[in-house]
This record gives sequence, structure tokens and C-alpha cells, in this order.
Amino acid sequence: MQKISFESDYRTGAHPDILRRLTETNSESLDAYGSDIYSESAKQKIRKACDCDDAEVYFLSGGTQTNLIVISSLLKSYEGVIAADTGHISIHEAGAIEHHGHKVLPLEHHDGKIEAESLDSYIKDFYADENHEHMVFPGMAYISHPTENGTLYSKKELEDISAICRKHNIYLYMDGARLGYGLMSRQTDVTLPDIARLCDAFYIGGTKVGALCGEALVFRKSVMPKHFMTIIKQHGALLAKGRLNGIQFDTLFTDNLYFRISKNAIDTAEMLKEVLREKGFRFAWESPTNQQFVILENEYMKSISDKVGFSFWEKYDDNHTVVRFATSWSTKAEDVEKLKSIL
Amino acid sequence: MQKISFESDYRTGAHPDILRRLTETNSESLDAYGSDIYSESAKQKIRKACDCDDAEVYFLSGGTQTNLIVISSLLKSYEGVIAADTGHISIHEAGAIEHHGHKVLPLEHHDGKIEAESLDSYIKDFYADENHEHMVFPGMAYISHPTENGTLYSKKELEDISAICRKHNIYLYMDGARLGYGLMSRQTDVTLPDIARLCDAFYIGGTKVGALCGEALVFRKSVMPKHFMTIIKQHGALLAKGRLNGIQFDTLFTDNLYFRISKNAIDTAEMLKEVLREKGFRFAWESPTNQQFVILENEYMKSISDKVGFSFWEKYDDNHTVVRFATSWSTKAEDVEKLKSIL
Amino acid sequence: MQKISFESDYRTGAHPDILRRLTETNSESLDAYGSDIYSESAKQKIRKACDCDDAEVYFLSGGTQTNLIVISSLLKSYEGVIAADTGHISIHEAGAIEHHGHKVLPLEHHDGKIEAESLDSYIKDFYADENHEHMVFPGMAYISHPTENGTLYSKKELEDISAICRKHNIYLYMDGARLGYGLMSRQTDVTLPDIARLCDAFYIGGTKVGALCGEALVFRKSVMPKHFMTIIKQHGALLAKGRLNGIQFDTLFTDNLYFRISKNAIDTAEMLKEVLREKGFRFAWESPTNQQFVILENEYMKSISDKVGFSFWEKYDDNHTVVRFATSWSTKAEDVEKLKSIL
Amino acid sequence: MQKISFESDYRTGAHPDILRRLTETNSESLDAYGSDIYSESAKQKIRKACDCDDAEVYFLSGGTQTNLIVISSLLKSYEGVIAADTGHISIHEAGAIEHHGHKVLPLEHHDGKIEAESLDSYIKDFYADENHEHMVFPGMAYISHPTENGTLYSKKELEDISAICRKHNIYLYMDGARLGYGLMSRQTDVTLPDIARLCDAFYIGGTKVGALCGEALVFRKSVMPKHFMTIIKQHGALLAKGRLNGIQFDTLFTDNLYFRISKNAIDTAEMLKEVLREKGFRFAWESPTNQQFVILENEYMKSISDKVGFSFWEKYDDNHTVVRFATSWSTKAEDVEKLKSIL
Repeated sequence: MQKISFESDYRTGAHPDILRRLTETNSESLDAYGSDIYSESAKQKIRKACDCDDAEVYFLSGGTQTNLIVISSLLKSYEGVIAADTGHISIHEAGAIEHHGHKVLPLEHHDGKIEAESLDSYIKDFYADENHEHMVFPGMAYISHPTENGTLYSKKELEDISAICRKHNIYLYMDGARLGYGLMSRQTDVTLPDIARLCDAFYIGGTKVGALCGEALVFRKSVMPKHFMTIIKQHGALLAKGRLNGIQFDTLFTDNLYFRISKNAIDTAEMLKEVLREKGFRFAWESPTNQQFVILENEYMKSISDKVGFSFWEKYDDNHTVVRFATSWSTKAEDVEKLKSIL
Repeated sequence: MQKISFESDYRTGAHPDILRRLTETNSESLDAYGSDIYSESAKQKIRKACDCDDAEVYFLSGGTQTNLIVISSLLKSYEGVIAADTGHISIHEAGAIEHHGHKVLPLEHHDGKIEAESLDSYIKDFYADENHEHMVFPGMAYISHPTENGTLYSKKELEDISAICRKHNIYLYMDGARLGYGLMSRQTDVTLPDIARLCDAFYIGGTKVGALCGEALVFRKSVMPKHFMTIIKQHGALLAKGRLNGIQFDTLFTDNLYFRISKNAIDTAEMLKEVLREKGFRFAWESPTNQQFVILENEYMKSISDKVGFSFWEKYDDNHTVVRFATSWSTKAEDVEKLKSIL
Repeated sequence: MQKISFESDYRTGAHPDILRRLTETNSESLDAYGSDIYSESAKQKIRKACDCDDAEVYFLSGGTQTNLIVISSLLKSYEGVIAADTGHISIHEAGAIEHHGHKVLPLEHHDGKIEAESLDSYIKDFYADENHEHMVFPGMAYISHPTENGTLYSKKELEDISAICRKHNIYLYMDGARLGYGLMSRQTDVTLPDIARLCDAFYIGGTKVGALCGEALVFRKSVMPKHFMTIIKQHGALLAKGRLNGIQFDTLFTDNLYFRISKNAIDTAEMLKEVLREKGFRFAWESPTNQQFVILENEYMKSISDKVGFSFWEKYDDNHTVVRFATSWSTKAEDVEKLKSIL
Repeated sequence: MQKISFESDYRTGAHPDILRRLTETNSESLDAYGSDIYSESAKQKIRKACDCDDAEVYFLSGGTQTNLIVISSLLKSYEGVIAADTGHISIHEAGAIEHHGHKVLPLEHHDGKIEAESLDSYIKDFYADENHEHMVFPGMAYISHPTENGTLYSKKELEDISAICRKHNIYLYMDGARLGYGLMSRQTDVTLPDIARLCDAFYIGGTKVGALCGEALVFRKSVMPKHFMTIIKQHGALLAKGRLNGIQFDTLFTDNLYFRISKNAIDTAEMLKEVLREKGFRFAWESPTNQQFVILENEYMKSISDKVGFSFWEKYDDNHTVVRFATSWSTKAEDVEKLKSIL
């Protein structure tokens, strides 16, 4: 039996509709650098899905690329970005934010999230410090939704964080690498228009939600840096064939494909949770999205590792490990069935 | 009649074989970040094509991205890169090299090329200058092949430049955005193994030669920076689905596809030259590759511009303009025929 | 009565011998950029004081400048610097390290110090993490001696930290902004030659120990970056009149002046401690150097603040504050007497 | 006979009044980081000398430091700075501007100066270029006054350049490393208030005009970057003992000292020119300031080089060299007499 794969949500290719559209449009001669008709169409559909007619949309190739360009183009040189100490930019982007000149200011996480109150205190304490002119100014709050732990902010939590950011005049930026899975969770009250209303910038992740690559970056109109295309170019992030991202997102935002395939990840994740619960596994924490975190006894972990793929998350204790099982847009019900037979 | 397109070599999608392979492999669960079997296979094929078993190969998404990562990872902070004043990094990369900390040291071009002798003089003069410790040290020579002007270095010229670089202990790096078109030119004596032997690093361009995106960066083994994958990540250039580039280059380097489709660009360019010559157009300079540069009278230029696409290159005089006609892997003989009927 | 000053150790000018020597040598025509005879003489005296004949010595103007140049010139782009979370570079350098591209990797402090064991664990855990290629590599340990809390490493502690660094092949760098006060503490077994033997780079602070400005940066010979003068220039840190720093350090290292004036700060600090103890003040922690940290009741703190200068350190609780009293090379016994009469 | 020194204007110490004031104020306990009363007083005097009550003044330590901080804090990431190809930032600052992310856009010089018309053309051509979004935007014009060649802009030339900058909405920044020598030239119609009126930022050089170190940076109020002190800190350029620069500039701007000592350099330069002319030397170009450039026959040059110090400027031809003789605030009439006896 072939090993079944739950390591991550970026191990299969693209949704077949995307490949079909790439093929159908392949011989058309299109304008370069993102000026093509499909990119334009995709932007228009995304604005509509965000219920925000004047949002500015740009397509980039990956999450770290998007994060570093947004953060370094919005912040002043003396500003840093506040993030959960478990945030992707805090740990797993190889120091890309610092490499581009800005400190990540870590805030203690709670299930991967930051809290409005802590954010408020951090900023107040900063300005209360007599030496703050010798320190890094807070210029932005970075949140991921879903978080790296698979958890979600409630609408109330997002509203509170947004209000704190506006009170202190700092940006709120959301990393939506897995945004589809957050929006289609059975336990969320947050919609895409909510996000567009509450954040200054965010991205709708494609790479982990059915595209070969690509993230759709959305700016509140008044926030977008001038000459942003030149900024993208300067970071080596401007694709000559912008059609690649344009066609992918145009397809994802046609007939709600993005949401439909995201729902598949949630449905299979719920099946997965059911199986794990039935089998008596302990969850490291509750996750309402496509990533599930389970505490495995080390010997057992090794014993199943050639039949099923999962990923190491962190050491739990000397005998146990937290591992991640992730579903995706392409996970099949039968994959979960097979897993059930293995565990 | 539909407008025919000679604006550039990046206006159509990918070679159909690439789309076919992406589709065939789409549902396979593959390792991420470039560890997949197709990336590995592509690297092996490229090493073979370079006749260099221990070359290190990495896949990146675009030319500017590749240039800035190579240059900033190989140079010391106090070093700059010597390039023709017409070089892509000198002018058309939005200051990406400087944004990453390094000065581009311009050398006067001759038909888009630098000369070994000028390079040697530049470096000798630098070290002879009593104040050179207050100046930017030359650390690398950057050449493009074909150049931005469509011209090519001869093997002798490359050997001379390489010898100067080795004499002065600086790197030689080749930007091969259109390398296929250079290798398949009817007027070249330079082969891929020659390039691998004479350069410290170079890239084999995919974006302009039949891929949707992607460049294959090749390092002489001893030259490759340590932890290069982390460096790529830090620049936001690491694709989670490395398969995208891997499969494209695996396809391009199977059954000589890269060379066969490059030859098509050359064949149609030769047809194009013939047409232009017949019609009595003046060439701005001789180009043995897929880009042809012609001097058009301004009124005439406007009169044909809704029937044929070409690109503005530079003002020639008050009444004339240099324009570029580019063929590509996807140009058809009938496109040139149509052009003939328009001119 | 004039307000007496214990706010910091950089509120008076320079030791009078320094001003005298600047005046005596003023009309001499000297080579620029650090090539003058006084800089050379100072370097030689510092090498001797370090008992390290082949150390490389450079003079810079301030602590943050020295830290950022050392760190950014020694680290690879993918490396960060491990420091106590209370370290100067972690908090009070306005993000200078990140602005120059490198993450400060914080380690929990114990009285301002890092521990060899924690350092070892941090590095081991890093390499044990399956995802470490997506993270910032530890490339250096930064310690301050005395620390920001006025505390000191023992020789054993330094040896252990040095051994861990060498085991893992990372640099050990010491910020010696107040090094004289550490070396002359009554409770230290660490000498300047010990430091030169155990660290890869460190600086001997001038600004806080009797100079108008200036820090003497010392490199182990094999560690010093090539073309370091050009690197200094590139950071805007090369003084045309290098004599300013050269003469200051030449004076400080003549007849043990640096050590003698450092001893004055320690002697007056011991008097100060005695006074504070007698008066029943609670120390926030023990400090064997020139900075003393006391917990004051807020009302009382306000009541004395127009008669004596001290500096806010941190909030202790709603009614108490930790404040710092600092002596220096120029503190007089009578200043402490006056303080006694005020408290 | 002792060798006489005309190599540069930074080989002697400080004007004696400066050393006297440093000594007189030495034991005063002063606020740090530039908040001391002498810095405040100096700023007020400089505002008055500039006839600009709301100018913002900051003290930095050297020219390259000032240039890189001004340029990198005023420009957007996608902007570069236009400068003469002979400009200090173009050649002799070790790539400091590029190291901080910005391209220096070279304009052909005429006797070290740029011309308003060329500047206008450059900017117009930039925006006319269809590909300009892939290029570095012009964001500032940098001029030095006096230039590196010792030449000066006329008031008319400055007004024209300023008008072009304002028309195109880019900054005008003047490097005044030798500003005093420009203002006291016998052939200038430019005053300090003119400069303050026409430039957005400029600095009044101290290092080369009688100070041990230090440059006074002046911003038009509306132009000054927010939190500029933090920006200075972040570049390692904030002196703890800001008094060092404050007292120097307070002294230089008391009783017109800056102008009086600058006049000495001009007076001795005029004597020097007379001597050179009498002796029949050929000038490489006319200079109305303290630097004089003479073409020497190589054999002759060597023959006098152990009796008089001058500096190599550039090769003239195989048998001749352009050398620089520089006077300064401290040059004595008798130094010129001695030179006369040697030549």
C-alpha cells in the first residue's frame, strides 16, 4: 500500500481547473508583468469577494515573499512588527524580515494568537518608557489567520485588535497563507469582507489552497505604497509572465472555487478529527481548521511513519512528540479511511 | 486581422509539453521546497548538459531574483559588480542590486558587451588608485549572453574575460535569461559546457525560453554559498511547491526540448531578418539571436503599430526610433509571413 | 545646593590628561583615517595590555556603531546573534542589528547574563529541529561585560561560554562599553588577557570610561574581516581625523590611566553602596561594578529628584520603581557625601 | 627642514578656541545624546546664521555618515540620488549609499558640477521612458559645494537647480564638507541663507573646517524625517556625549569663528595660486577655493615629494600627474613662503 500523505497542504499540484485554464489560454499573446486581462479579471473578482471596490490587489509568488515586501514597504526604518512568538515571520522565514531591516517584536502567543489587550499594553509600555527613542517603534501588528497552530480569531477578537491598531496608528496585517481554510471552518464567524474592513493589508493564500504558487495581496487603497510594482521588481518578485498568477486566481475566484476546495479540506479534517478521537489520541490543542496537532508516543510514532506521512511539530516530553496531520483541498475521504485502518 | 506579436519573448504561456507534464504529475504527493524527484531529475539532466558532474543547480523564479541573490550572496559587503552600462542589472532591475547593498560598476559597452581589456584596465586602475580603500572593490564581472542588444560573446571573448577574472580573483557570472537563443544562434561557437567551464555561476533562462517561470542557476561547486537554500528563503524566493520549477526544467531538458524550441526562435528570427532586409529597413546593429533592432521613421512606426506589436528601444533622432522585434520558441513562420504583408 | 549627578557615566567630558594631550599635539600635521602615529602607538599599547601581540585593533566612535559593524561584518546573511534578552543590542540600539540585516536571538537572562548551558541547548535544539534550514542560524554569541545590570561573568563562566562557542564554531563577541569598571571590580577574577584569549572580538569602552568618544575594537587576528577599513567607511564610521580616537586611547593606555580612573568609579561605587545600605535601601540585585540598582518608593523617589540625579530603570510594582545610581571615572568622594546628606 | 603639508585640510587638530571651550566645560554634568545646553545653543546660532528660524539642526560625526543617513532616510526604497559622476558619494564613500540600499545615478560633471539643464533632461527622459517602472526613480539631487574639484555653484546656478528639483518634486541636498571655504571664496555670490532657502537639506562641514570631527546637518523643517534621533541611533551615529559636537559648533558659530578661519584658508590659497602661477605651473582647472589642482611633470613631482606634502589626484598623461595642494583654516602664510622656496 502506498504511503498516505498528511504532512502538509502543499504536496500535490494545482486544482485541475487551474491547469485546464492555463492550457486553454496558453497560446494567447498577453501583456507582461501583471498587466494581462486575466490578472485584471482576477483582481476584480477578489475586490468583489472582499466587498471592497477600491481595494488594491497584487499577485506575488509565496508567503515569505509577500510578508517581507509588505512589511518592509509599509514600515519606516525605525519601526518593527509585533507578532506572536510562534508567528511564521518570528521563526520560520529564515530571518527574512530582519534581512530586510526590521525587527520582529515578539508577543507571547495563546494558541498561536496574540491578544488585543497584550498588544495594547505593549504599545503603551513602549511609549511610557523614557528610553523609547533608543528602541524599535511598533509600526505594525502581524497576525496569521488561521495561525500556525491552526487556530482562528473570532470576529470580536479581530475587531478588538483592529481597534487597538487604529487607536495607536499602527498597521494591521494578516498573513492568510491558509485563509480559505479559516473562512470555511465550521467554527468561524469571520468573513472575507470582515477581514478587508478590519485589516490594512492581508493576503489570500494560493500556494496552500489549490494553486501551484501565488498569493493575492490586498491593500486598503489609502495604505498601498506608491510605485508598488517597482518595489516588487526591486525584490526580484515581479514575474514577467504575470499571467501565471493571474489565471490561477481568476480560476480560484470563479464560481467560488476557492471556497469550495477549501471546504473539502475542512470536511476531511473533521473526518480526521473524528478518527483521531475515536482512536483515543490526545490533541495538543483544539484546531478548527485543516491542521490537527496530536501527541504521539515516540515508539508508536516511529512504527506508523512508513505508512503515513505527518510532520514533526515539537517535542512534548522525553517520550512524546507533537505531530501535525494536515488535510488540503485535494485530500480524499478515502485517504482518511486508509489512515483509520493504519492507526 | 488580429494584431501579430513581436514585442517580446514572454507573451505566450509555456511549451505544451510542460503543461502536459504538470498535468500528468499533478496528483502526485511530492516533497516540498525543491526536494522533489522532478527537481532532482532536472538538476541531473542539467549537470549532464553542462558536462559538469559536480555543478550545483538551484531553481529560482525570475531573472532579477536570480541576479540579486547570486550577486549579494557571493560578494563581500565592500564589493561591487562590474557590468556593461547597458546591462540588465545596470538599468532595468529597479535598483535591485543596490537595494541589496551592492554597487553596479558600469563599464562602457560595445554592442552590449564588455571587453576583456577594459575589464582588466578597470581592475588594475582600481588597485593603482591610492584611495582605493575608500572605493567599492570590484568583486565580480556580470555579463549577459545573449546581451540586452541580442549580441553574443565569442568563445575567445569569453575565455579572455574568464582569464582576466581568474587573474584578479573575482567571480564571473553570466545572466542567461535568453541563453537558449544564444546557444542555438547560427553564429556562435559557444556551448553550454564552455560556459560551465568558464563561469563561476550562470543561469539558464526558462521564463523567456518556453517556461511559465523559472531559471536554472548553476554554480561551480566550490563557489556555491553555504546554506544556499536558507539564503533563497530569506529573499522570499523559495517556492513551497518546488515541483513547479522542477517539472518545467525536467521537461525542457528531456529530449533536448530546450534546444529544439530555442532553434525555432532563431529560425524565425532569420526569416524576420530576411524580410526586414528585403523591405529595406536599416538595422540599428547586427544581432545573431532572436531580438532584432530596426530604425523606423516615426510616422511609419505609428502607422503600423495597430497591426503589429514591437517594442520601443530608444530614440534614434528626432524623426526616427529604434524598435525591437523579438521572436520566441512559439513564433510561427506564418507570423513572419503576416508581418511581411504588413510592412 | 547644586544637584548632584548619578544618572549615568557619560555626563562629564574627558579625563583632563586626554584634553591636555589633544592640545599638546593639536598643531601637528598627522596622517588621516587612523594612520597617524598616535593611533599606531595606542594600538601597540592595547595589544600589550591584552598580552596578545597579533591582535588587530580599530578605533570606532560609539558602542552601537561598534556592535553593528562587528556583527554585520562577521555574520553570514543567514546567521543571527544570540544575546541575553536584556542585552543592549536586544533592546536599546533602536534595532541597529536588524537594520543591518541580522536577527538578535534572545536568550533568557540571569542577572543580565547568559549561561553556557542555555547557549549550548539553544544551538543543539536549533540543529535538531527538522525545519532549521527555514530558520536563522546561530552565528555568534554576544555578551556584555559588565552587563547592562552591572553584573560580571566569572572567569569560569567566560571559559565555559567560550568553549561552547568554539565547540559549535560560532563567534564570541564581548561588548565592553564599561569594561574598565568590570576589570577593576573588587569581585572579579577576569583580566584583559583572559578576555583576549577567550573572545573572538571585543571592545574596550572609552565613551563611558573617560573619553569624549571612542571604543577600541580588538579582533583575534584570524577573525578580522578583510578590508575592514573599507567596511568602517561604508558604515559612515571612519573619522578623517583618526587622531581624535588615537590620542584618547594612547593617553588612556599610558601609565595605566584607563585602569586607574576605572578604579575611581569602583571606589566611589563601594562608598555609594555603603551609604545606600546604611540608609536601609533595598537593592534590586547585587552589582559589583559602577552601576547600582535600588528599589525606591515612588513618593520618596519624587521627593529627592530635584536634589539628586539618577535614572529610571524599570517599574517594580505600583508603588515602587527600580532606579540606577551610576558612578564614573569622575565621581568624587564628596559627591557621595552630599548624596548621603540628601537621602 | 620639516616637510610642509598641503595634502589635505584635515591633518591638524581643532581650532584652539574649540579645545579651550572643551576644557572649560569639561567638568560640567551635561545631558547626553545631544540634549545638552551647548548643542542647543549651537543649533540656535546656526539657525540664525542661516536666517531660518525653524530649520532643524542635527550634529553628526563625519561626511559619509551624514550623506548616507540623509539620503537613506529621505528616499523611498525605489528612489536613487542623482550626483555628478565625480561626486563624493559616486566614488569615494566605499559604496555607502548603495550599502544602504540606494543607487547613485551619475550625471556627467562639468568641473565637478552638475547642470540644471542636464538634471532636467535626465528626469524628463526617465519619465518618458516606457520602461521607467523597471528603473530607479530619481528622488534627490546631490551637489557638493565646493565640489570635489574645488569649484563653486553661482547663485544663479543654485537657483536653477533648485527650481528643477521643485518642479519635479525631488529633494535637493548639498554636501558642505568644505562649505566655509565656499562661503568665504572671493568669487562667490552665494550666502548661507541662500543655501538654506534653496536646499531641502545640507550640512555645514566641521571636520575640514577647524573641528576635530562633526558636521552640522540642516533640514528645512517640513522635510525632516520623523524620529530622526532614532534613525541616527540605528545607524550607530548617535554620540552619547553629544557635547563633543555641540561645543565644537557652538564655538565655531560664536563671533563668526567659522567664517574667520575659513577666510584664512582662502587667503592662503590665493597666495598659493600666486606662487604657483609665478613659478609657471599649469592648473588642471580653475578653483576659487582652498583646493588647487596643478599638473606636474612626474619626475619633478617625485623630486619635491619629500619636502612638500600634496596629494595625488589623477593621471594626466604618461608623463604628467594632476596633484592637489590644499590649504586650510590652520595654514600659515609662512607655509606658502616655504613652498615657494622649494618649488
